[in-house]
Amino acid sequence: MNFHVALKKVVDDSYDIEIGYKLEDKLVEDIENGLVGEIRNFAIITDSIVEKLYAKNIVSLLKARNYKCDLFVFEAGEKSKTRKTKEVIEDAMLEKGYRRDCCIIAIGGGVVTDLAGFIAGTYGRGIPFINYSTTLLGAADASVGGKTAVDTELATNLIGLIYQPKKVYIDINTWTTLPRRQLSSGLCETIKHACIADKEFFKFIEDNIEKIFDFDKAICTHVAESNCRIKYEVVMKDEKENNLREILNLGHTVGRAIETVSDYKLLHGEALSIGIVAEVILGEKLGYVTLEEKERVINLLENCGLPIKIPSYINKEELVKKLYTDKKVRNGNIRFVFQKGIGSVMEFEGGKYATVISEEEIKKVIEVM
Amino acid sequence: MNFHVALKKVVDDSYDIEIGYKLEDKLVEDIENGLVGEIRNFAIITDSIVEKLYAKNIVSLLKARNYKCDLFVFEAGEKSKTRKTKEVIEDAMLEKGYRRDCCIIAIGGGVVTDLAGFIAGTYGRGIPFINYSTTLLGAADASVGGKTAVDTELATNLIGLIYQPKKVYIDINTWTTLPRRQLSSGLCETIKHACIADKEFFKFIEDNIEKIFDFDKAICTHVAESNCRIKYEVVMKDEKENNLREILNLGHTVGRAIETVSDYKLLHGEALSIGIVAEVILGEKLGYVTLEEKERVINLLENCGLPIKIPSYINKEELVKKLYTDKKVRNGNIRFVFQKGIGSVMEFEGGKYATVISEEEIKKVIEVM
Repeated sequence: MNFHVALKKVVDDSYDIEIGYKLEDKLVEDIENGLVGEIRNFAIITDSIVEKLYAKNIVSLLKARNYKCDLFVFEAGEKSKTRKTKEVIEDAMLEKGYRRDCCIIAIGGGVVTDLAGFIAGTYGRGIPFINYSTTLLGAADASVGGKTAVDTELATNLIGLIYQPKKVYIDINTWTTLPRRQLSSGLCETIKHACIADKEFFKFIEDNIEKIFDFDKAICTHVAESNCRIKYEVVMKDEKENNLREILNLGHTVGRAIETVSDYKLLHGEALSIGIVAEVILGEKLGYVTLEEKERVINLLENCGLPIKIPSYINKEELVKKLYTDKKVRNGNIRFVFQKGIGSVMEFEGGKYATVISEEEIKKVIEVM
Repeated sequence: MNFHVALKKVVDDSYDIEIGYKLEDKLVEDIENGLVGEIRNFAIITDSIVEKLYAKNIVSLLKARNYKCDLFVFEAGEKSKTRKTKEVIEDAMLEKGYRRDCCIIAIGGGVVTDLAGFIAGTYGRGIPFINYSTTLLGAADASVGGKTAVDTELATNLIGLIYQPKKVYIDINTWTTLPRRQLSSGLCETIKHACIADKEFFKFIEDNIEKIFDFDKAICTHVAESNCRIKYEVVMKDEKENNLREILNLGHTVGRAIETVSDYKLLHGEALSIGIVAEVILGEKLGYVTLEEKERVINLLENCGLPIKIPSYINKEELVKKLYTDKKVRNGNIRFVFQKGIGSVMEFEGGKYATVISEEEIKKVIEVM
């Protein structure tokens, strides 16, 4: 006997991204105007650095308006993005009496928004959450797509959810407190977006490196906007065109692996930079980019203060082994996304955007880096 | 500057529930016919009891057809429904090379399907899963609604997801290997469904207790079908009519609390039985059920081998305290769902199905139980 459970329905997960300077008051104003309905309980999740810089202030603003509000702080860094941290925060929230009628506000960079979004997605089987992004990487990476996750010993970002926030705030003012190394790291996802989708934006970054590092408002706003736009267009098209989203993985085959093998001594963007260099070297060999384009990409990364060589402390054998844990691996084969010149991507047989590269070829590239 | 992310779309999570005898071959046949597409890697999650009874056989059947297939077994019992067990299984799956291109098959009762569904929902940000239900409770509780979860020290089922299976198999043959106590426990959710939605079905159970415990095929099939139908109708109507789903929580205010306070010495259905008794005693006081209806409910529970008194080892003060962790608690108030006679539920002001009951009133009832 068969019983059919019909669950076809229209789901609306739409939300706004607001890009601007000092958006703390706007956040509180939006909440008062019903951004998350009648909810009056807010769990603020942040890391040990952002706590003092921005999170405490937002807690004060909310408390002044009589919202129940507590800070849940974990140690800054990718190493905290674990199931253990998730568990500790969940237990602390339960301990403080947070139930289903609460909202999470994530204040911080990609680690905070990834982790807090995952907690929100499984707390009480899903409670609303708001992202208040305090890094350039957040603007590029954590604001569109709804990807949340934690890392495990054996895989990066493999345990997680697609879960959409109610709103994302990108506060460009917060970039001024970023260490230069973090800002460079964030820029790498920006450069990746330019490489896969926007030749003009690539040129714009080349022409404005100094102004970005000087926090020129107009320039930084354009960077944040372009990031969101490119990622959004890719994610939207992916709804219809399967696999397109895979192009966002440019540079990540080697990048993710080296990030893990470095034991997170390399920041995500730094590891990604090395991954993009590996990708353009391979791409030039295969005729997907010209020698000149390859050099433009490598120069831009370098001029933004990003590493373009594999650090000497990296065990290259371990790195090659790690490539097999990449999420793009199919039937035991390592796969790469390639840019086509600058501002476009290669499309392979069967509408695929990632193609198999033999371990031999990869080893040759890794050897010369 | 505002940027709108439009994510309105049609989602189809429909699936079939198949109710029958010895469905192992049907499961494998469905997989060969593309139930989960081209996937050839199957992680079978089960508990230490069901492993030997049914899971090993299904692994053999799949391996004989050249599917990659591994068993992931945890110790039977509600105490295993934890984030720790989830983590151990995830790591074992990663260790064995399971990536995004795999499917989970949950074989077991509610603990297995709750836990395995939650793992599936967050593994690789969501992989397909199939439920092969081997208990009456599974038929009643784990087959419609998509609720998955684990327990924590401080709350039952609070960390989890709504995540739908690709198909549910209810194999009535497996009920024959259930200990009588487990069968009684499963029947309690069935009785709950009858109490809230189907007077005739309530009568049917009263008239057929013996035949259910004798595994009469026609009777058991009707029980499984009615369970799915009632729960399905409630869950479906809830899509339009907010809160209706809350009626499935009948008996759970006290039931969930006593289950935890008993440290899971009480099975879920046993705890629920005591919870339903508390609910009808309160309901009779408040005029929602007659004395006769109250007695019919209590008698049916007792005749099905279910407890109707609070065991002496339960600390009643601790039990009252625990009530405040119930998911229906709003603004610190304990809330109950009440049946209206037999086969219907009370609706309160503002279209709510759960109403506040004072600690005083609850204590009085708990004292006499």
